[in-house]
Amino acid sequence: MKVTLSKLTIVSERLLKDQLIQLIRSEGATGYTMTEVGGEGSRGVRATDWEGRNLQIDTIVAPSTADSILEKLFEEYFEDFAIIAWVVDVNVLRGIKFAGDKSAE
Amino acid sequence: MKVTLSKLTIVSERLLKDQLIQLIRSEGATGYTMTEVGGEGSRGVRATDWEGRNLQIDTIVAPSTADSILEKLFEEYFEDFAIIAWVVDVNVLRGIKFAGDKSAE
Amino acid sequence: MKVTLSKLTIVSERLLKDQLIQLIRSEGATGYTMTEVGGEGSRGVRATDWEGRNLQIDTIVAPSTADSILEKLFEEYFEDFAIIAWVVDVNVLRGIKFAGDKSAE
Repeated sequence: MKVTLSKLTIVSERLLKDQLIQLIRSEGATGYTMTEVGGEGSRGVRATDWEGRNLQIDTIVAPSTADSILEKLFEEYFEDFAIIAWVVDVNVLRGIKFAGDKSAE
Repeated sequence: MKVTLSKLTIVSERLLKDQLIQLIRSEGATGYTMTEVGGEGSRGVRATDWEGRNLQIDTIVAPSTADSILEKLFEEYFEDFAIIAWVVDVNVLRGIKFAGDKSAE
Repeated sequence: MKVTLSKLTIVSERLLKDQLIQLIRSEGATGYTMTEVGGEGSRGVRATDWEGRNLQIDTIVAPSTADSILEKLFEEYFEDFAIIAWVVDVNVLRGIKFAGDKSAE
């Protein structure tokens, strides 16, 4: 009933919303949640960018899909934007097909 | 000071709020958080159901309690509703009794 | 490209916001997110305290930093406030320096 997948979380400036959704979709993610978060970043000069509302995107995908999304994030956004991303293993209740999850087919 | 428990997360349509809280309580969960999230689901015809505000419920329980909640979710909701659920192991700061956590008694 | 760190989550009454941010900063955390959450706690007499809006703080730090924050939380807040905290291992996309993360220097 459960399958182990990767939950990928991205926290970024709101202006990247559409681009990030397009990125995760293009890599195969079929579902995601978005949450408004406040906070403060760790890059000195960008601290003010992080005050107030930012965007958190969570998506559950196969580990290989998480890796390819992280690679794209790193190549395309990390240098120029205040963005962080992390991955955690989760046990997901089956019944929905996730990106790259062969076992759910 | 720390104990390993399960953090169970449920993302669903808002209309299930009261039912889901009742479900997790009936299985023994004593605390939970609720967060409003936006997003989009993975079941084609239900994509629009997921746009806009949905509900995320997080509760920390013993692994066996997480399993029994997942079973009920699967039996009672999975076929008819846009709902996903996942579990992750967390190290919880002690001092509060969690459902089914014998070690905290 | 990835490094394993600890994601520490604290859920508390909102009135502790400034104190908790000061606490995690004094231990070395350089970034965090804050989310408004509803919910209900597990300590009988405090259940009403938890209804409505509460605060969730997430910060990604080195495991040793997470431990020292948990110790402080336990010593200074656990007896008197409705607060819970947990830690989970996460694989973080590199590029930002996190508190105590020697490998990212």
